[in-house]
Amino acid sequence: MVNFVSINGRLVSSDAAYVPANDRGFTLGDGLFETIRVSAGRPLMLSAHLQRLQRGASVLELALPSLQGLTNHVWKVVRANQLPEAVVRLSVSRGSGQRGLAPTPGLPPTVVIAMQPFNPYPPRWYDEGVRAVTTTVTRNESSPLSSVKSLSYADQVLARIQAQGHSADLGLMRNTREHFVCADCANLFVVQGDRLLTPSIAAGALPGIARQVLLWVAGGLGLDVSETELSQADFHGADEIMLTNVLLEVAPLVSLDGLPVGGGKPGHYVALLRRAYRLAVGI
Amino acid sequence: MVNFVSINGRLVSSDAAYVPANDRGFTLGDGLFETIRVSAGRPLMLSAHLQRLQRGASVLELALPSLQGLTNHVWKVVRANQLPEAVVRLSVSRGSGQRGLAPTPGLPPTVVIAMQPFNPYPPRWYDEGVRAVTTTVTRNESSPLSSVKSLSYADQVLARIQAQGHSADLGLMRNTREHFVCADCANLFVVQGDRLLTPSIAAGALPGIARQVLLWVAGGLGLDVSETELSQADFHGADEIMLTNVLLEVAPLVSLDGLPVGGGKPGHYVALLRRAYRLAVGI
Repeated sequence: MVNFVSINGRLVSSDAAYVPANDRGFTLGDGLFETIRVSAGRPLMLSAHLQRLQRGASVLELALPSLQGLTNHVWKVVRANQLPEAVVRLSVSRGSGQRGLAPTPGLPPTVVIAMQPFNPYPPRWYDEGVRAVTTTVTRNESSPLSSVKSLSYADQVLARIQAQGHSADLGLMRNTREHFVCADCANLFVVQGDRLLTPSIAAGALPGIARQVLLWVAGGLGLDVSETELSQADFHGADEIMLTNVLLEVAPLVSLDGLPVGGGKPGHYVALLRRAYRLAVGI
Repeated sequence: MVNFVSINGRLVSSDAAYVPANDRGFTLGDGLFETIRVSAGRPLMLSAHLQRLQRGASVLELALPSLQGLTNHVWKVVRANQLPEAVVRLSVSRGSGQRGLAPTPGLPPTVVIAMQPFNPYPPRWYDEGVRAVTTTVTRNESSPLSSVKSLSYADQVLARIQAQGHSADLGLMRNTREHFVCADCANLFVVQGDRLLTPSIAAGALPGIARQVLLWVAGGLGLDVSETELSQADFHGADEIMLTNVLLEVAPLVSLDGLPVGGGKPGHYVALLRRAYRLAVGI
């Protein structure tokens, strides 16, 4: 079956989807991206994704097409591909211009919207829990781009490679003060009694869309929610630890570096919060 | 005149030089690059560039083509374009594969070798000196990729944008301990008496090719050379400050945030070291 990709608003077959070799997305990681869950044929929380994209564009001083235009193009790809359960990858780069760091003024951005079937994570991740390792890759919470989902994602790739090297599922990243802030592809939450703690954006966490939903629903369920800095003691003393992203939803983290954490098995709150999360986003 | 680009060893016209839109260089900044000076029709210090590329590939666990193959492809581009004074951009990504952070095993890398005429920096940069600003972008010296010239270069792009916003030439970056480590596109050196200090790789400096040459020639000229961490006092008390990269060679830095630094004008050592550098690399 033909798979369609949108390149600057034009639908092409995925095997004909190319960008210029001098595109700044390719040469400098100079751009932004969003990974959007499609369920029952609808892109979930599209406006939240586009608002985050817009905040990133403002940090990177990148001229974005209108959010209405991007919304239309995402829907065009979703309708063309007819995959009810899918993942949309929206990438925006600063376009292709002259060599060097300085952006060429007035350059139109490159917008690529691709869509693939959603491959659910292994059931084991939910039933038994996710196994992670501590990586040597750190989040630079002192730099403006730590809060931006930019195309410069080699740190996260390396964290995942380190995890795979230890036969783990995901790699955890600490910030420069050695506090845990996130997994390579997910935000991190810790339960202590009836408190739910998550690393703050200032501590180096990415402002995840699923993270924001979980903060809302957990507050609604009466948990005492705070965005903070997670010390090693908070982490290792946690009753439960969980991970969020829009594809993973909410999953338990039960092992770190081969040792049990967060009670060593999926707990009460992760099940509760995953149900609440799914209700909130309509899946 | 037609400009030729090598894509995985195949020469194509630059206006037909494309990479797949799902290439991990574009989607994740997952790759490496080198910027190589061509002078009198010869790529300068090509083997040093390729050795650095190889060290980066080892950190990123990226399967590189043979260095002999890369050398041949660079020469093919240099010969095809017939530009005596030029810049070669060699980019290697992990190739195009499935969505997500985990590399698809056995994926062949994407190799793009492009070449453009060398546009010298403005003579003012050498005659009067470079003007820089301190940026809010920091180098994460605690992460393995701080010593790797990866395709994830958005930090440096943002540093340059901040510099341009202040009508400066370049942006300086500090590490997470607030020590100056580099400019957005150049390594940093400070002269104090007959000492030449430069931020170490451990402090977050990129292992620049021109940096290495300058360390050699300065040692040969009898300067007391050390790789260290540059405190604010070292920086502001410097007799001279200079910047290096293979295109810039050696240039004086004379102003930071609108105030004079390094004596406020090009000094004796920068002129001496630039001559020595040019002799050493054969330009």
